[in-house]
Amino acid sequence: MDSSSSLTLLNPNFKSLFYPKSIAIIGASKNLIGGSKYYFALKSSGYIPHEGKVFLVNPRVSELFGEPVYSSISDIKIPKPIDLAIIAVSAKIVPKVLLECNNQVKFAVVYTSGFGESGNMELENELRAVIAKIDTRVIGPNGLGVLNPYAKLNIYPNWVLYEGNLSWVAQSGGTMARLYMCLGPLGIGFHNVVSIGNAYGISITELLSHFYNDSLTKTIALYLESIPNGREFMDLAKQITPKKPIVLWKGGQSERGSKATASHTGGMAGSYDVWQAMCKQSGILLADHFELFQDLVQVAYVRPKLPKGLRVAILVAGGGIGVEFTDTFQKQGLIIPDFDDSTIEGLSQLLPSVNTNFKNPIDLGEMGYDPRLFEKAFLLVLKDPNVDIVVFVREPERFEIISELLRIPDAQKATVESLTRIAQQTDKPIFCNPSMNKDDEKAYAIRHNFQITMIQAGIPVINYMLNIPKIILQLNNYRKFLDRQSTSNSA
Amino acid sequence: MDSSSSLTLLNPNFKSLFYPKSIAIIGASKNLIGGSKYYFALKSSGYIPHEGKVFLVNPRVSELFGEPVYSSISDIKIPKPIDLAIIAVSAKIVPKVLLECNNQVKFAVVYTSGFGESGNMELENELRAVIAKIDTRVIGPNGLGVLNPYAKLNIYPNWVLYEGNLSWVAQSGGTMARLYMCLGPLGIGFHNVVSIGNAYGISITELLSHFYNDSLTKTIALYLESIPNGREFMDLAKQITPKKPIVLWKGGQSERGSKATASHTGGMAGSYDVWQAMCKQSGILLADHFELFQDLVQVAYVRPKLPKGLRVAILVAGGGIGVEFTDTFQKQGLIIPDFDDSTIEGLSQLLPSVNTNFKNPIDLGEMGYDPRLFEKAFLLVLKDPNVDIVVFVREPERFEIISELLRIPDAQKATVESLTRIAQQTDKPIFCNPSMNKDDEKAYAIRHNFQITMIQAGIPVINYMLNIPKIILQLNNYRKFLDRQSTSNSA
Repeated sequence: MDSSSSLTLLNPNFKSLFYPKSIAIIGASKNLIGGSKYYFALKSSGYIPHEGKVFLVNPRVSELFGEPVYSSISDIKIPKPIDLAIIAVSAKIVPKVLLECNNQVKFAVVYTSGFGESGNMELENELRAVIAKIDTRVIGPNGLGVLNPYAKLNIYPNWVLYEGNLSWVAQSGGTMARLYMCLGPLGIGFHNVVSIGNAYGISITELLSHFYNDSLTKTIALYLESIPNGREFMDLAKQITPKKPIVLWKGGQSERGSKATASHTGGMAGSYDVWQAMCKQSGILLADHFELFQDLVQVAYVRPKLPKGLRVAILVAGGGIGVEFTDTFQKQGLIIPDFDDSTIEGLSQLLPSVNTNFKNPIDLGEMGYDPRLFEKAFLLVLKDPNVDIVVFVREPERFEIISELLRIPDAQKATVESLTRIAQQTDKPIFCNPSMNKDDEKAYAIRHNFQITMIQAGIPVINYMLNIPKIILQLNNYRKFLDRQSTSNSA
Repeated sequence: MDSSSSLTLLNPNFKSLFYPKSIAIIGASKNLIGGSKYYFALKSSGYIPHEGKVFLVNPRVSELFGEPVYSSISDIKIPKPIDLAIIAVSAKIVPKVLLECNNQVKFAVVYTSGFGESGNMELENELRAVIAKIDTRVIGPNGLGVLNPYAKLNIYPNWVLYEGNLSWVAQSGGTMARLYMCLGPLGIGFHNVVSIGNAYGISITELLSHFYNDSLTKTIALYLESIPNGREFMDLAKQITPKKPIVLWKGGQSERGSKATASHTGGMAGSYDVWQAMCKQSGILLADHFELFQDLVQVAYVRPKLPKGLRVAILVAGGGIGVEFTDTFQKQGLIIPDFDDSTIEGLSQLLPSVNTNFKNPIDLGEMGYDPRLFEKAFLLVLKDPNVDIVVFVREPERFEIISELLRIPDAQKATVESLTRIAQQTDKPIFCNPSMNKDDEKAYAIRHNFQITMIQAGIPVINYMLNIPKIILQLNNYRKFLDRQSTSNSA
């Protein structure tokens, strides 16, 4: 690929899709897990009655939930076109219903499944032909559609709307829900969320172009099983990643997994090696399973700082964890450098020599839990010229006892405050691991609230230690991509 | 190694170490994180006053916490020897104090650190010489000592005593605590726990011999950074693993991590490749980081069934997860086999054809959450001759809504009941993944309680999907070791 290529970034107008003023639910019925789910979702989120109008459509019913039901789109007596239709009718009549939407509806979400992914190729072809012919732009089929907290546009009743700057497209409804529900409670909010399913109509690349131009989108997350034009996707990504990080989880990496995508969203996945190479060349942060994806998105959202290299300082309290992190990081290709003499000298002046270790991995010992000493030690390490990244362990479960032992009011608060100052001062990536010490509800609550506070302070918390080196390697690829870009731009 | 070798299994008498009737705490003081910690631990757990006598020793204090303090061991006016002494005095006087214990104390835990691991080789040599000379048997130094729920022998105040059949030895106090606190609340209990530190006295192999003969120990867990005689350890392990699973986490695997162990417990770690090969030859289940170790111990404790091969059936509800598991498992060397025609035929008769997939990975769809259908589908898959292992996803967070939709009283209870029957019927390994769908306190509580219930039912729950293939590969190594053993025994 030519890095100087300048693919025109389309700027599709998706305003009516993400901020619809009117919504028709075609196929609403008494079945609460069909189209009517959207009615209750829009009601519980406050879209109904405040934000816009919702119309229920079903030729066989005249009233539902106290609302009138229209027999067809044309029956609805408002000026057309309607902004968004959600189509939840049986697969066979989806093409017919979409034809009726032509010129009447700007955007349609096809919730119905049962096309190519179920082996019904004939129906798929019929649907594709209709989609190509009509003016209505289509999301799906086999997808849950669109969520936008700012527009109170919701997919499930009782889902909390988490506002923020992440936009997220998934070729799996379950995965869409999972990321939303795992990141939202941590304080990571969303602008536009799209469960795009088989993606016969609006494509991933169109959505990417939209997010590139959308000022509320600062980070982009994607779960893709297949895309028809990988080259076009990568050319576009390459123009976006210098401005906004893209995190991609590619499903269907193995031969068998690729087969499984065919019966899930109906696509062919392509070779994973090729994907990996293309992501590296386009500055895309790549994950190969959910937990890593979730953490990579957290990092890209919370602290998108890139390392200058792979030299990691490990800062812990307790020798066992230092050994564990060193083992894991070094096995995955990271460097655990020796410190500059001045760093070791500074640490020795700061902390007692018993039960501590000032070589990398650093064991700060019990006294290292004193937030004042911790801040000073952290800054010393951060300034070391041999260090590109700092990974540190703070065990929130211990803050209570530390406060007692050190006779300070709130060790956690003081620690987070000092870390906030540190995070603002440095451009080096820093990661916290909270090292689960107890698996019960109280300990979870402590860790969970700590993570929320840390994210507010701009510091990602990576719960599963094994993900940390993988994240660092991805960030380093991204940095190398940007270096190449700026070299070729200045040349 | 010669598999017919028959190393004499020593049967050391550690009764007074693990079930002491009298304990002296040497170096008890007002400092609550020193030796006095043990006093409060023994008090809170009920050892004091019910199980045995505790004597505080410190020449500079005459009373502490309302108890008399003795100036030395010989000062304590009870018939000698005392069963156990805990030594928490400064490093320099540890050798002298131990000499005073000779013939007066059966076992001593040296809590004090500051020997070889801190670079004080002279003091280490002095201590080693004393330990070799005296009758008192020593645990440590630089270790937290011994915990035994059955004897109400505790290490930390307020630690719950979790009774069970796991015995656990760790060369890191922090790691000892972590496993105890992460498994205990899940219902996995302990017999003997030893934080052995630098292990200058009683060796890992002596403890292993003891656990081999100990009827309350059914599973053995080890965190080791170094052992002086690897060959002896492996010969012994080889005789134990056919009877009791041994799970080992080896710290200090990388060059730099190995260096870090030197300043942690003072040993040299040895090549990790050699350890890996030796574990394979001895039937030891090997982990390389905490989270995997914890899950391997869970599996060895809860359901120590071994697979006949690497062919995994994946049973999920939702296409995205099926793709993810297939990708991950296949990349790590597992086989996702095609099912026998009769299995697919049986599944098709059981479940609707829409939104389901009866090829491996199986997507049971929404209806698969019906506990009755789930049980039947599970049994069909389990009986398939092409399947060695079943990995399934049940999302406990969804049971409430499923109960509502299916109009059954308690979908979780019914599911666990059917899984209990299934687990009892089959010798194939089965693993559950609960697929975190929401990261908040309520969802955690649901998952946590589900895991406790499942463990009671004899089914391990592996929260981090990436650990599952690693566990399966370790179990398969173990099975191959046992196959070789039985062949060479019958030859």
